[in-house]
Amino acid sequence: MEKPTTPLRRAVPILDWGRTYDRESLTSDMMAAVIVTIMLIPQSLAYALLAGLPAEMGLYASILPLIAYAVFGTSRALAVGPVAVISLMTAAAIGNLDLAGPGEYAVAALTLAFLSGAMLVVMGVLRMGFLANLLSHPVIAGFITASGLIIAASQVKHILGVDANGHNLLDLVLSLIEAAPETNPVTLAIGAGSAAFLFWVRKGLKPALRRIGLGPRLADGIAKAGPVAAVALTTGVTYLFDLAADGVAIVGGIPQGLPPLTLPSFDPGLVVSLLGSAALISVIGFVESVSVAQTLAAKKRQRISPNQELIGLGASNIASGVSGGFPVTGGFARSVVNFDAGAATPAAGAFTAVGICLAAVALTPLLYYLPTATLAATIVVAVLSLVDFSVLKRSWSYSKADFAAVAVTILLTLGLGVEIGVVAGVAVSVALFLYKTSRPHIAEVGLVPNTQHFRNIRRHAVQTVPTVLTLRVDESLYFANARYLEDYLYDRVAGDDRLRHVILMCSAVNEVDGSALESLEEINHRLEQIGVTFHLSEVKGPVMDRLKRADFLDHLTGRIFLSQYDAAITLAPGLEDRPAELQERA
Amino acid sequence: MEKPTTPLRRAVPILDWGRTYDRESLTSDMMAAVIVTIMLIPQSLAYALLAGLPAEMGLYASILPLIAYAVFGTSRALAVGPVAVISLMTAAAIGNLDLAGPGEYAVAALTLAFLSGAMLVVMGVLRMGFLANLLSHPVIAGFITASGLIIAASQVKHILGVDANGHNLLDLVLSLIEAAPETNPVTLAIGAGSAAFLFWVRKGLKPALRRIGLGPRLADGIAKAGPVAAVALTTGVTYLFDLAADGVAIVGGIPQGLPPLTLPSFDPGLVVSLLGSAALISVIGFVESVSVAQTLAAKKRQRISPNQELIGLGASNIASGVSGGFPVTGGFARSVVNFDAGAATPAAGAFTAVGICLAAVALTPLLYYLPTATLAATIVVAVLSLVDFSVLKRSWSYSKADFAAVAVTILLTLGLGVEIGVVAGVAVSVALFLYKTSRPHIAEVGLVPNTQHFRNIRRHAVQTVPTVLTLRVDESLYFANARYLEDYLYDRVAGDDRLRHVILMCSAVNEVDGSALESLEEINHRLEQIGVTFHLSEVKGPVMDRLKRADFLDHLTGRIFLSQYDAAITLAPGLEDRPAELQERA
Repeated sequence: MEKPTTPLRRAVPILDWGRTYDRESLTSDMMAAVIVTIMLIPQSLAYALLAGLPAEMGLYASILPLIAYAVFGTSRALAVGPVAVISLMTAAAIGNLDLAGPGEYAVAALTLAFLSGAMLVVMGVLRMGFLANLLSHPVIAGFITASGLIIAASQVKHILGVDANGHNLLDLVLSLIEAAPETNPVTLAIGAGSAAFLFWVRKGLKPALRRIGLGPRLADGIAKAGPVAAVALTTGVTYLFDLAADGVAIVGGIPQGLPPLTLPSFDPGLVVSLLGSAALISVIGFVESVSVAQTLAAKKRQRISPNQELIGLGASNIASGVSGGFPVTGGFARSVVNFDAGAATPAAGAFTAVGICLAAVALTPLLYYLPTATLAATIVVAVLSLVDFSVLKRSWSYSKADFAAVAVTILLTLGLGVEIGVVAGVAVSVALFLYKTSRPHIAEVGLVPNTQHFRNIRRHAVQTVPTVLTLRVDESLYFANARYLEDYLYDRVAGDDRLRHVILMCSAVNEVDGSALESLEEINHRLEQIGVTFHLSEVKGPVMDRLKRADFLDHLTGRIFLSQYDAAITLAPGLEDRPAELQERA
Repeated sequence: MEKPTTPLRRAVPILDWGRTYDRESLTSDMMAAVIVTIMLIPQSLAYALLAGLPAEMGLYASILPLIAYAVFGTSRALAVGPVAVISLMTAAAIGNLDLAGPGEYAVAALTLAFLSGAMLVVMGVLRMGFLANLLSHPVIAGFITASGLIIAASQVKHILGVDANGHNLLDLVLSLIEAAPETNPVTLAIGAGSAAFLFWVRKGLKPALRRIGLGPRLADGIAKAGPVAAVALTTGVTYLFDLAADGVAIVGGIPQGLPPLTLPSFDPGLVVSLLGSAALISVIGFVESVSVAQTLAAKKRQRISPNQELIGLGASNIASGVSGGFPVTGGFARSVVNFDAGAATPAAGAFTAVGICLAAVALTPLLYYLPTATLAATIVVAVLSLVDFSVLKRSWSYSKADFAAVAVTILLTLGLGVEIGVVAGVAVSVALFLYKTSRPHIAEVGLVPNTQHFRNIRRHAVQTVPTVLTLRVDESLYFANARYLEDYLYDRVAGDDRLRHVILMCSAVNEVDGSALESLEEINHRLEQIGVTFHLSEVKGPVMDRLKRADFLDHLTGRIFLSQYDAAITLAPGLEDRPAELQERA
């Protein structure tokens, strides 16, 4: 995607790509839309169920939001709509409230979508997409894995045909064990049968179709229709044998027709109690969506605009809030299918919306006998593919800080719920980052022989002189580590009587804030008292610009050298004739 | 102070310095103790008043806590006891609770001291002194200034002899304006007279004494006794003219004798509601105390141990909690006096405790007619010297991030109270630090002619070749900026057809976490797709150690060079013959 030329076209990308829309794009988009629609019909119903909402809200969340994204979004392959994790978070957010009956649940859900949409738009206008960066990859991976387990566990009740509840894994499992004796055998047969069928479709059908001679695209397309087949089959069986009379829970009457126009609630109590959840849903939804959008765009050397994506997803959620839906975002699985099926522009999403519209108008009577156990089976099979504990092993071997963040995320998500889990994960990663930067790596360096390059005296055989100490601080100097540098330097300097010069090599110092400036002044002052001159080398441009604005440079006893090599040959003339030594680690 | 030789001596420093305690130290410590005791008597009464507690609690907080610090503390000059800011925070913490009467206030105050002490000890044992580093110098300066204003405003009611309340400046001022017509003229005369006298003692007395020929030490000592003189004078006047009958509020009966043994409350409701305040008081008290202790230690080339200081202050607060006191810490003004008066060891504090003990036993009847207006005047004069808005100007010119943090701290402390103010200050500094590191400075660099040194092509005339792009990232690579680097690189590389090599110069990269590793893998992969080789140079030892643990190096299309110069002469052979150019800023 080329950069749009005018501000209006940047803000409303459809004006940009719409100008060059041609018959070829139309064909590709329509093809992709048909396949995504077939996937989305059972998914939208299932995720409404997961969110604890009536099935039709899943359809409503798959119409107007898709059109809004087609107008304001920048990804050519993103398939917006209800997704598993956001639906679970919606269930958790609404479940926390003290609500009376399904009507209030529905209003709370669409209010949540509206709030989340408004927040996304505000974040987009203020260009706050960077906030999503606070979610590290390991935290996201851990969160998705733990959410997948909770979602799967939350669906088991529908497969058993019992009542059980809980927003964390332990509550859910205990509640299920208690309810297990009430299991409805017919429901279990339908649910477990559907799940087994869907697992087989995923793993076994495509290779089987290839073996009997079908082309790869056709085989893939047929496999994608697995959930629709399961829905059709179990609905038919339930209708024919009147299984509802045997206690099999069915979807029942879905209002036929277009989405209603709805208004979110402006009850201050409700709005305030949903604000935190809306913020979390916004950020998590944005991260999930923007990751898949970037991955898919890169494959075609296209770019997406993260800040415009905030606006696109925001518009989408606002649309959901005014048309009877619940929070939506760009889903991973459907977007990949959309991309593979050849979607060329965001118009593919609008065509999908038309498909779901037709379903809402024409198909809903046929879904009356659809067993909820079948929908639960489609969810279980979809989310179990997200569960992947390998991030624990990878982060353990690579970075203990990452491991701590991901372990906390998984444990708290499973134990205390999705909202606490993800907030704790972010808090732990930020805290550990601050802790690490508050105790920076400080290396004493010497000259690598026959170069102008300086390295750690404990890792390389280098040349040094006893009158000059060069410390390289491997971190920006800021309030959290200013005192640490002071302590380190005083400890190192104390009792070293031969010392005449201390050089602070600033190649890794990207920032010196006010607290650190005071520490540098203090260091300069104290070194002066013991007759040692204080120098800086390799100070970066932006840091130098700032130091010039304070009076530190007027008090500095030594000099500022452009390069560490300059500093060394000036202050230690015989350095290059010294023997190169590798110092033992202390 | 030499490093103690055994773990026991490190944990109980008195065992260390006590071994070499001699007659000379004894004389110095006793002299210092006399002067500090004279300062501390009115201050301890005044700060109890500020905390909203009975006057005797100020005396109790100045006995056992000082002895506990003498046993466990490491600073030779720190004078522990009630201080202004911590007393204000105590008032705010207890004022937030729903308590019935002075008895419950007192129990809440000593529980707060005990909790805060326990937290400090735990932080010391877990070596969590670094937590205090999260308070940047500008935030502390702003907080102290704003607190000073609130403290001064909170004392005006005593000087006017009216009732007025509020934990933020606006509430206080409004309440004072409303109450002003009730002003008691005699009280006002005493309060304003004392304040004027104390200001004159501070600014005018010492020069006057020097002019009439007194030595500097004696002049200084007499000036320090100003508050005691004001107390004696106004108490005498109030007694002689029976001013209490004219409505002048007096301290009244103070129980005579040693501190009582008290037990903090273990009521879970009270403990939980005090936890947050106790944590804030611990951190703020520690920061205030450790700053002055470090400054004074440095003047004599001594060192203090921050983690042992946590234990010393913790023991001190626990002692306060079990002997009828309230939260204490090392105060700035008294510590400087202690140091100047020649305190040689922590024993000076213990001798001060003996002095206050004598006062509690013998002097309390004499304080019956002491007007609270006099105590209020000593507080106002003491805290106004802390008010200093120059930090706003300094931080504005040096760093807008520091300015934002200090402005938020001052505004919220004045507007919403001390606790919200300081928490918001820390939150803003951390958030701005994360924001800055999430958008790191990235420089394209070239060779400075006739050196092996590489600098920004937009700041220096340097040599480059069009086939090689070298980017120096001025920040550790971690989750918050991993995606930013990717975006920057793809934008730079897109459309540059001559490019064959990209070198990431890692001299300022102090850390590559799991998220950033994934980004580097992605960059490597995408560059490979467009036929560009990806290299790293000047990777630091600790970062290299970690990269070796992942399989990134196996996939890397290019090489890892020890120095950027090696990389450049290998990949761009003709580089040193190119003309040096200074590129225009984009």
